[in-house]
Amino acid sequence: MAIVDYGALKLEAIIAVLDGGVLVITLNRAKQRNSYGGTLPTELIRTFDLADKDDRVRVIVMTAESDAPAYCSGADISKGWGGLFKPEDEVEGETAHRDTGGQVAMAIYNCRKITIAAVNGHAAGVGMTAMQLPFDLRFVWEGAKLVFPFVRRGINTEATSSYLLPRLVGHSRANSLLLTGATFSPTSPLISSLYHEIIPRREDVFPAALALANDLASNASQISIAYTKGLLQHPGDTIEENHILDSRALKLTGSGADAAEGALAFKERRPPKFPDMLSKISSPWYPWWKIVDVRHRKAKL
Amino acid sequence: MAIVDYGALKLEAIIAVLDGGVLVITLNRAKQRNSYGGTLPTELIRTFDLADKDDRVRVIVMTAESDAPAYCSGADISKGWGGLFKPEDEVEGETAHRDTGGQVAMAIYNCRKITIAAVNGHAAGVGMTAMQLPFDLRFVWEGAKLVFPFVRRGINTEATSSYLLPRLVGHSRANSLLLTGATFSPTSPLISSLYHEIIPRREDVFPAALALANDLASNASQISIAYTKGLLQHPGDTIEENHILDSRALKLTGSGADAAEGALAFKERRPPKFPDMLSKISSPWYPWWKIVDVRHRKAKL
Amino acid sequence: MAIVDYGALKLEAIIAVLDGGVLVITLNRAKQRNSYGGTLPTELIRTFDLADKDDRVRVIVMTAESDAPAYCSGADISKGWGGLFKPEDEVEGETAHRDTGGQVAMAIYNCRKITIAAVNGHAAGVGMTAMQLPFDLRFVWEGAKLVFPFVRRGINTEATSSYLLPRLVGHSRANSLLLTGATFSPTSPLISSLYHEIIPRREDVFPAALALANDLASNASQISIAYTKGLLQHPGDTIEENHILDSRALKLTGSGADAAEGALAFKERRPPKFPDMLSKISSPWYPWWKIVDVRHRKAKL
Repeated sequence: MAIVDYGALKLEAIIAVLDGGVLVITLNRAKQRNSYGGTLPTELIRTFDLADKDDRVRVIVMTAESDAPAYCSGADISKGWGGLFKPEDEVEGETAHRDTGGQVAMAIYNCRKITIAAVNGHAAGVGMTAMQLPFDLRFVWEGAKLVFPFVRRGINTEATSSYLLPRLVGHSRANSLLLTGATFSPTSPLISSLYHEIIPRREDVFPAALALANDLASNASQISIAYTKGLLQHPGDTIEENHILDSRALKLTGSGADAAEGALAFKERRPPKFPDMLSKISSPWYPWWKIVDVRHRKAKL
Repeated sequence: MAIVDYGALKLEAIIAVLDGGVLVITLNRAKQRNSYGGTLPTELIRTFDLADKDDRVRVIVMTAESDAPAYCSGADISKGWGGLFKPEDEVEGETAHRDTGGQVAMAIYNCRKITIAAVNGHAAGVGMTAMQLPFDLRFVWEGAKLVFPFVRRGINTEATSSYLLPRLVGHSRANSLLLTGATFSPTSPLISSLYHEIIPRREDVFPAALALANDLASNASQISIAYTKGLLQHPGDTIEENHILDSRALKLTGSGADAAEGALAFKERRPPKFPDMLSKISSPWYPWWKIVDVRHRKAKL
Repeated sequence: MAIVDYGALKLEAIIAVLDGGVLVITLNRAKQRNSYGGTLPTELIRTFDLADKDDRVRVIVMTAESDAPAYCSGADISKGWGGLFKPEDEVEGETAHRDTGGQVAMAIYNCRKITIAAVNGHAAGVGMTAMQLPFDLRFVWEGAKLVFPFVRRGINTEATSSYLLPRLVGHSRANSLLLTGATFSPTSPLISSLYHEIIPRREDVFPAALALANDLASNASQISIAYTKGLLQHPGDTIEENHILDSRALKLTGSGADAAEGALAFKERRPPKFPDMLSKISSPWYPWWKIVDVRHRKAKL
């Protein structure tokens, strides 16, 4: 178990504060309209990687200041798209590039804790993709302007959005969002199913997300969350394979201390106090899927 | 073709009555709040397995008494989760367990007849998963309290729900339901897409489901249903593979007596009387997917 | 680049007119209730195949005359289903048949331009499947009667609908639509998520679709659309594989002339004028998936 002093990480693009099992990440680039750039990608990857391993963290909420110009205004392209690429990309050709939006998305998606995006402002481009889609749950301000503008800017969908978005809302809605590049309100039927809750007032978005985060930090088992997220992301190819996977997971979780406490607390009509910690998962079977790290440009599947 | 006297099955946990092509299964554990336990799982598996083979059955409706405390209140965990496991599970280790919720879910999911759940009461845990998700269609009472409480009880999602739920409603909604463990009303946008119809009055849920069941028993071809369910569950990995599969299925169904009657009845503007029976499907190609029985703890994929 | 004179194609079942990057296909069988038959399938396949290769085409809109009896009334089965089959199908057995609905669906689905169906009338059977599901976006008249009647006619779902429909709207809605064979209004929650927009007045459906088509023809990059459609249809099996694919695509599109123009136009707050053409895609990596042509009855996967 890693003990992380998030305040000592010398983060600049984000502020990370752990309080009672909830790690709150606040985007700290309001002066740059919370654009995606600078050290933001590497700080996000580092923080989510650490939070995944830090047993004290049960839920992560990411948000912006509610009076910032945007939740995340996307990449800064005032100098063109060339800024996306590194010198070695140019030398080594088209296979060398690794999109940082995808790196961030994978760090969030693969985090075994509950992740919540509190989208309390406008969002564009990577602000819609990496900064929202890999999260488990999304809260949004009803007045936010939301846009996936890629086809109107001459590039393609990025940050693993062509994988995540159709899975989240189906291909009919994903097509409407990604292929038109139009701007949507959260209440549009084309995008509303992306969100756990749509909040009328901007300043109420983060408190609503935090309330659920605190509830889950107190009342949800870290082990249950990790196994359930694993099953949702790696369910097996058939119902039969899924049955074998969830049966084995159930034997492991159901024999643990959290399950005993969960049943007892339910019987006694009181909140549970789950004792288990994720770092103590003892079966070598978990994770049952192959862990692949493709972040480096020379890594292969 | 098996001729089954459902009344002679000596069922205790359920009542099964066949009338005019519709097999109605009524949960018969109101005194135990229709909890999932006792002989319920084995009786359900046995009944759905038989109904699959019984040519007289065209549609199956499962429901509860409309004045029962719940449609299905889930597993009884007053003595903890240990009751889930069999002695051999403990001896043979973590690979030996086979979740009975998954066994029931597979029996329903793999049944080749139309299956309808008439959820006329509250539902929790396995009452939401095995008792609802594997059905083709779900009717629900608007006043029902619905909850997938697993993460708040220290265990993981079971009964193949991590396979079925994201396929039914997408990962955005599945995350909201499974990872929060919150209680939902059927009209919540987070769960409403799970249901074919939401019915205001509790006592009207089963009649509405039965009306559709009778309609389909009279007017839908058993062969059409079996092939269409097969295609939906086993569509091929690509559009090209699906084209080859549905073309071959179409040649078989389109050359049959039901197709001739279907076209003639449509032309003559009268209800069809489909003569074919599922046990008479003659192509060795059907089923085109591999049948795997993993119910036994030593069975493998 | 193929220069196609659509007016010279001697089309009978459809009318095809290219105007400013938008190819409008109008079904021309109003006297036959726009039934699916005659030369319609082969003309559609030919036109979509050509439009895919014709760099002038950026968006394709398919519609019917707004006073026709139907958008597409489905196959004419007044003489039974036998008309579906060719003589060689009968001789060569059940593997020889290739459903023309699937052929049309694949031609539309695999077209690399934006495809829009403007469903300004009733639709049944293949009028719901091949004539709607493979399109990127669907507009519909609120008063349209929509039905997938297959199970009530004795045949199975066709035209790759068992592949496309669950992907578009999820299995819960797909089950309700395909297994009941009932008639739906576009505003029903069971089918509404299939549509980009539901239009109250019939005569307004095509103009609304055309307005979006003209917008996208002017303001969306042909290269962006082709790569984004490729990523949505062939996203890789895991998030890691998707990351590698969209990173490589991004290096290619982001280094191109359209991306430069997209960024510049955005900076200068003016509409873009994208110079690239799809026939000039130079990376041998594109397409990254295997192209399979299974249209011929002897073709294999």
